[in-house]
Amino acid sequence: MIVDTLAIVGTGLIGGSFALALKQSGAVRRVLGVGRNPARLTIARELELIDGVADYAQAGQADCILLALPVGETEAVLRQLAPRLKPGAIITDAGSTKANVVEAARAALGARFADFVPGHPIAGSEQSGPGAARADLFQGKKVVLTPLADTRADALETVKALWQAAGAQVETLDADQHDRVFAAVSHLPHLAAFALVDELAQRADGETFFRLAASGFRDFTRIAGSSPEMWRDITLANREALLTELDAYLAALQTLRQTVAAEDGQALLKMFSRARAARENWMKTQDS
Amino acid sequence: MIVDTLAIVGTGLIGGSFALALKQSGAVRRVLGVGRNPARLTIARELELIDGVADYAQAGQADCILLALPVGETEAVLRQLAPRLKPGAIITDAGSTKANVVEAARAALGARFADFVPGHPIAGSEQSGPGAARADLFQGKKVVLTPLADTRADALETVKALWQAAGAQVETLDADQHDRVFAAVSHLPHLAAFALVDELAQRADGETFFRLAASGFRDFTRIAGSSPEMWRDITLANREALLTELDAYLAALQTLRQTVAAEDGQALLKMFSRARAARENWMKTQDS
Repeated sequence: MIVDTLAIVGTGLIGGSFALALKQSGAVRRVLGVGRNPARLTIARELELIDGVADYAQAGQADCILLALPVGETEAVLRQLAPRLKPGAIITDAGSTKANVVEAARAALGARFADFVPGHPIAGSEQSGPGAARADLFQGKKVVLTPLADTRADALETVKALWQAAGAQVETLDADQHDRVFAAVSHLPHLAAFALVDELAQRADGETFFRLAASGFRDFTRIAGSSPEMWRDITLANREALLTELDAYLAALQTLRQTVAAEDGQALLKMFSRARAARENWMKTQDS
Repeated sequence: MIVDTLAIVGTGLIGGSFALALKQSGAVRRVLGVGRNPARLTIARELELIDGVADYAQAGQADCILLALPVGETEAVLRQLAPRLKPGAIITDAGSTKANVVEAARAALGARFADFVPGHPIAGSEQSGPGAARADLFQGKKVVLTPLADTRADALETVKALWQAAGAQVETLDADQHDRVFAAVSHLPHLAAFALVDELAQRADGETFFRLAASGFRDFTRIAGSSPEMWRDITLANREALLTELDAYLAALQTLRQTVAAEDGQALLKMFSRARAARENWMKTQDS
């Protein structure tokens, strides 16, 4: 057992899967669920993701508290928790952006900021809610923790051990670097996919385009099926890094446009070959 | 039986699968293979994709001749075939672009241009070569034929019947419209995926980006694993339509950039929601 009592604020896909994995592995004895939606908490209880429902005062007495919420809600929830935390309680989160979460935590937690370990599990599903939770969601997946200089070392170790018990590979990164990396490999592709689908859907003859689209289009735009609310929040939360990545991508596409206009077959072949080789090398490092 | 003898110029994935499907369905009696690569023809023969190897003179005596080649080779092959075609022989192709193929065919075939039915099967695989051929490759897939005003009606009907015998759904489209549609739903996404992967691979700290990339990135960039040679050829062959689509996409991304910079959450939510709805409607029409 790593901690006795875990509290989960937000018992959806991520929070529920974390709870399930840790109970099954014996890393925690008891899980409490906190949330605004009573129906959701009832489902989480029925599915045995949580052992009981708690309010912020009860959650503050847990040994570890995971926030698995839209990142925009982090500060308000931490302000509720801050005065109710027992000595030594560790707080962590699962938000997709980190610099803004760190800022919110510093503002809300004050002296207890050292007990906060910012985290981001790189796992998900198009499904959401407690019903989508799975004990193996994090198996073999990466989790990035972005501790600060003043983060308590033992809090970091505990959170790391919990994610490892859930099957994840943990690495640490600077919060700004985290946001820059995910702007490029996740947030930008989502925006690029949303933009392509929307641009075609807006055309008067859009139906012809969709009718003839095939598997390449399907995979390229799969992430345009993601939650609009969640992606609005992530886009706004990681706005600056995302703008930098959007500009780099626009510049790359402009260069490519010029290469196409110049009919420079050699330059096209070189670029496509480099990209394929880079992707093949990357795929070799992926196990799923 | 729809035709007695079919000749396939290019016995790779597409040509080989067409041959297999038509032999299995009884739509053709005999298939001849034409190609520059003897080793490839031997494999095609061993795999029983073809019943025999032919030169252009023998292929010209077939009832129907399919060109399944890089589009850039169309004109040279048709110039070889043109003087050797028996009366009534039908020629068709499987190229990914159509306006340039029509132009090449008109130049090469002269008076026999009416016997040419331009076509594009919307099916493929990351694999290529005769070993990748499958009798069910076209099952349930779409094939677009782009006949001209002077295309022989019975030639069009025969080619249509052959593709239907291979399991495909056939529709006809104007060649320019075909190129515009595929520039948008296929060629542009390929370029956008190649550009993203290459842009990241060129960075000094590119390794960190790839290391943390997950399933969204994998699917968005799957098509960046495609053949660089084939995509150079398609890009050059469909250059004008592709530039138009690239410009439309760049404009859409610029608008999105401004929306992000303005922190306009409502506009982001609206656009993401429209895109998701359009994609969901499209997915309902897809059966695989």
